[in-house]
Amino acid sequence: MNKKKVFTHFDSQGKAAMVDISAKKKTIRTARASCILSMKKETFLMVKNGSTSKGDVFGIARVAGIMAAKKTHELIPLCHPLSISLIKIDFELDDGNFSIKIKSQCKLDDKTGLEMEALTAVSIAALTIYDMCKAVDKNIIISDIKLLEKSGGKSGTFKRK
Amino acid sequence: MNKKKVFTHFDSQGKAAMVDISAKKKTIRTARASCILSMKKETFLMVKNGSTSKGDVFGIARVAGIMAAKKTHELIPLCHPLSISLIKIDFELDDGNFSIKIKSQCKLDDKTGLEMEALTAVSIAALTIYDMCKAVDKNIIISDIKLLEKSGGKSGTFKRK
Amino acid sequence: MNKKKVFTHFDSQGKAAMVDISAKKKTIRTARASCILSMKKETFLMVKNGSTSKGDVFGIARVAGIMAAKKTHELIPLCHPLSISLIKIDFELDDGNFSIKIKSQCKLDDKTGLEMEALTAVSIAALTIYDMCKAVDKNIIISDIKLLEKSGGKSGTFKRK
Amino acid sequence: MNKKKVFTHFDSQGKAAMVDISAKKKTIRTARASCILSMKKETFLMVKNGSTSKGDVFGIARVAGIMAAKKTHELIPLCHPLSISLIKIDFELDDGNFSIKIKSQCKLDDKTGLEMEALTAVSIAALTIYDMCKAVDKNIIISDIKLLEKSGGKSGTFKRK
Amino acid sequence: MNKKKVFTHFDSQGKAAMVDISAKKKTIRTARASCILSMKKETFLMVKNGSTSKGDVFGIARVAGIMAAKKTHELIPLCHPLSISLIKIDFELDDGNFSIKIKSQCKLDDKTGLEMEALTAVSIAALTIYDMCKAVDKNIIISDIKLLEKSGGKSGTFKRK
Amino acid sequence: MNKKKVFTHFDSQGKAAMVDISAKKKTIRTARASCILSMKKETFLMVKNGSTSKGDVFGIARVAGIMAAKKTHELIPLCHPLSISLIKIDFELDDGNFSIKIKSQCKLDDKTGLEMEALTAVSIAALTIYDMCKAVDKNIIISDIKLLEKSGGKSGTFKRK
Repeated sequence: MNKKKVFTHFDSQGKAAMVDISAKKKTIRTARASCILSMKKETFLMVKNGSTSKGDVFGIARVAGIMAAKKTHELIPLCHPLSISLIKIDFELDDGNFSIKIKSQCKLDDKTGLEMEALTAVSIAALTIYDMCKAVDKNIIISDIKLLEKSGGKSGTFKRK
Repeated sequence: MNKKKVFTHFDSQGKAAMVDISAKKKTIRTARASCILSMKKETFLMVKNGSTSKGDVFGIARVAGIMAAKKTHELIPLCHPLSISLIKIDFELDDGNFSIKIKSQCKLDDKTGLEMEALTAVSIAALTIYDMCKAVDKNIIISDIKLLEKSGGKSGTFKRK
Repeated sequence: MNKKKVFTHFDSQGKAAMVDISAKKKTIRTARASCILSMKKETFLMVKNGSTSKGDVFGIARVAGIMAAKKTHELIPLCHPLSISLIKIDFELDDGNFSIKIKSQCKLDDKTGLEMEALTAVSIAALTIYDMCKAVDKNIIISDIKLLEKSGGKSGTFKRK
Repeated sequence: MNKKKVFTHFDSQGKAAMVDISAKKKTIRTARASCILSMKKETFLMVKNGSTSKGDVFGIARVAGIMAAKKTHELIPLCHPLSISLIKIDFELDDGNFSIKIKSQCKLDDKTGLEMEALTAVSIAALTIYDMCKAVDKNIIISDIKLLEKSGGKSGTFKRK
Repeated sequence: MNKKKVFTHFDSQGKAAMVDISAKKKTIRTARASCILSMKKETFLMVKNGSTSKGDVFGIARVAGIMAAKKTHELIPLCHPLSISLIKIDFELDDGNFSIKIKSQCKLDDKTGLEMEALTAVSIAALTIYDMCKAVDKNIIISDIKLLEKSGGKSGTFKRK
Repeated sequence: MNKKKVFTHFDSQGKAAMVDISAKKKTIRTARASCILSMKKETFLMVKNGSTSKGDVFGIARVAGIMAAKKTHELIPLCHPLSISLIKIDFELDDGNFSIKIKSQCKLDDKTGLEMEALTAVSIAALTIYDMCKAVDKNIIISDIKLLEKSGGKSGTFKRK
């Protein structure tokens, strides 16, 4: 007796449209996302040391991610403008794999969730790190952009297994 | 006698700054990037069939990627505003792996390259597909965002091995 | 004993200012607008056929209109940023007159209406079609940009006769 | 033996893409566009008198049109970012028809023309006037958005008959 | 037993983050700010007379300030997007000191205050006047950008002494 | 026989318009600007120490200033979009006066100068510091926003005495 899952961004004739959220309730909603940058050892160590002696790589990527999350509805065509309450971005260095994990956490009190804001935050933070390292290493790869968790709203909590 | 590779986005005291490109020559420069979206079979088939019967998933993602590439300098803090001449985005469906590859191709005649534009194009196109599918599958993963090739400018051609 | 109609965008000394909506109630409000593109037969048929074989003219114009509606408060100086809930855009082809009608429908739950969003959506969708056809026909005319209907708020429902 | 006119915004497989202008020459290019706002006598007189005693209706619409023209490439998906050199907007009041004509004039020294900038300028200027008058007259119609003339570039001069 | 004042824009580890306002109440909040432009007599008189005969200097600066206030969250990295209800900008000419005072007044019904919007409005209005006068006087100085007053919210009313 | 200085942003009838720069030559142009933030001792020391232990105040303000400079033509109505080549921002702490001086340096190879970009950079960097400190000190004042120097172009070099 499953209600069939359907794409919500198409109307009955298959044309793109924003999902109508006018009748939904405002509730506290959260979303968390992450991604990974993989680079060669030399680059990783420059970033790692650079980030202590120069202080700026992660600082700039963090600002870029926060500002980009606020632009999500300008970037993703069918996203709604939202009253974002919180955007946080953290970095974890993995010395064994020469990789950097970026994690975002977003929160608001509005009629729809901000999964896309959380995903946009880590994506642009990662691209910013790429930009700052590309003079030494153009082979950096950004991977595993994924939603970790969301809560709030009618569809309830999602947690990636 | 190697000239030591250094991060170009920090000045001599380690503070962030745009790279000064005023003295560089305008030349034709190109960049190509790609990424992969992995999803479960059910989602893949809905996108695949949806894209023929409804026509819009890839159309919307393509427009989103093109428009985002034009915003690169607003998203990545130390990127220069550039006279972009061309942005193209293509999609390849991999029926065996239930994945979609997105490829971008960018071109301009300016003083610096547009690697970041090519990477931003595929990233935002991928996030747009995620947004349109997230009602049916929140587990989609975006991976392998990478620069495939660049040409033009003093640093010459780069080709990922 | 009519209350005299006055321009609301000027303060008592005639200087421009946003209308203060802080004390207004949030209610569901809607707006619908339309416009018409007139072109020569040759162009009309290319668009019409192009839109079936190539699929993209209306898709791109629709995305452009939706994204522009979200930018309304950045374009129209005295408009408020709004929590837009829905933007829809439709196209009707008039084979007799070689013209295309564009219709928008907008909705939100906020303190003021979104007539300007509905009008901006059709205007930019129309300009996008112009852009995509101008290589074959620079004489296309965009006309009859008008508000069809609005509902909600203290001023109630408006319906164009 | 006419070279067949084709839509330039589609590649050989019918997918949308920006036109590649990297190999084109920078030359001085101009474009002029216009549109008409029609309103009832009462509104027309309020605007006309308002514009002399209060000074602001046309001033605000002019600024809105100029600023919007600079945003053209953010609004129209396949437009290029351009080095705009000049945007001018003028208003003509037609006392007989209670209508306002808006005219724009744009100029640059770049690789492609700015017809869309000229059209966007008059469209947004017109919507701004609508916004400032809508409290007294929601029936205002914006019509005859059209390109008057363009010059420069390989395709040469176009003049509307 | 004072609660120690702390910077609110840093989390416990000293990394930048937006302040979480999701649990705060929506209330009416206001903010007023001002700044001063000082110029030489010749310039002051040209602006003063220009503003009556030509009408536009203050009109354009007012629009620029209003539009910039709506962009505050795009400019100041850790500001929240807000439902701004009112932005007003006024100019006072000081004939004795050849200076212009710019004052802004902002209002909303939201979860946090708009001090930054009020300050951004006067700053950009002032820069716009500078831009319009710089051909005759590059020595103009913008000073005394300050918050005059704020009200609403848990921290209550602030009034500059 | 002095050529009379005139406002360049008004046409012959006194209406606002961008200055036509299409016929000007591209040359290397530079601009430098500065401003000062004055605060009470307690705040100054928190910023100063915060900036070493937390590292982020100046980092965030620097990014904000750089990104805002790239938005100058979107903020100042009659500014041209420019091919900015370099934006640098520095901070000097004045322990005697509990004040912070912000200095910007901009450079490009284009048809007009970037004085407004240099001024916008320091203004938004200063507002960002205000934003990050306003929880502890709402009385901070931003002053002395001024152009220090410009070079390049027909009008040559300007140096503030």
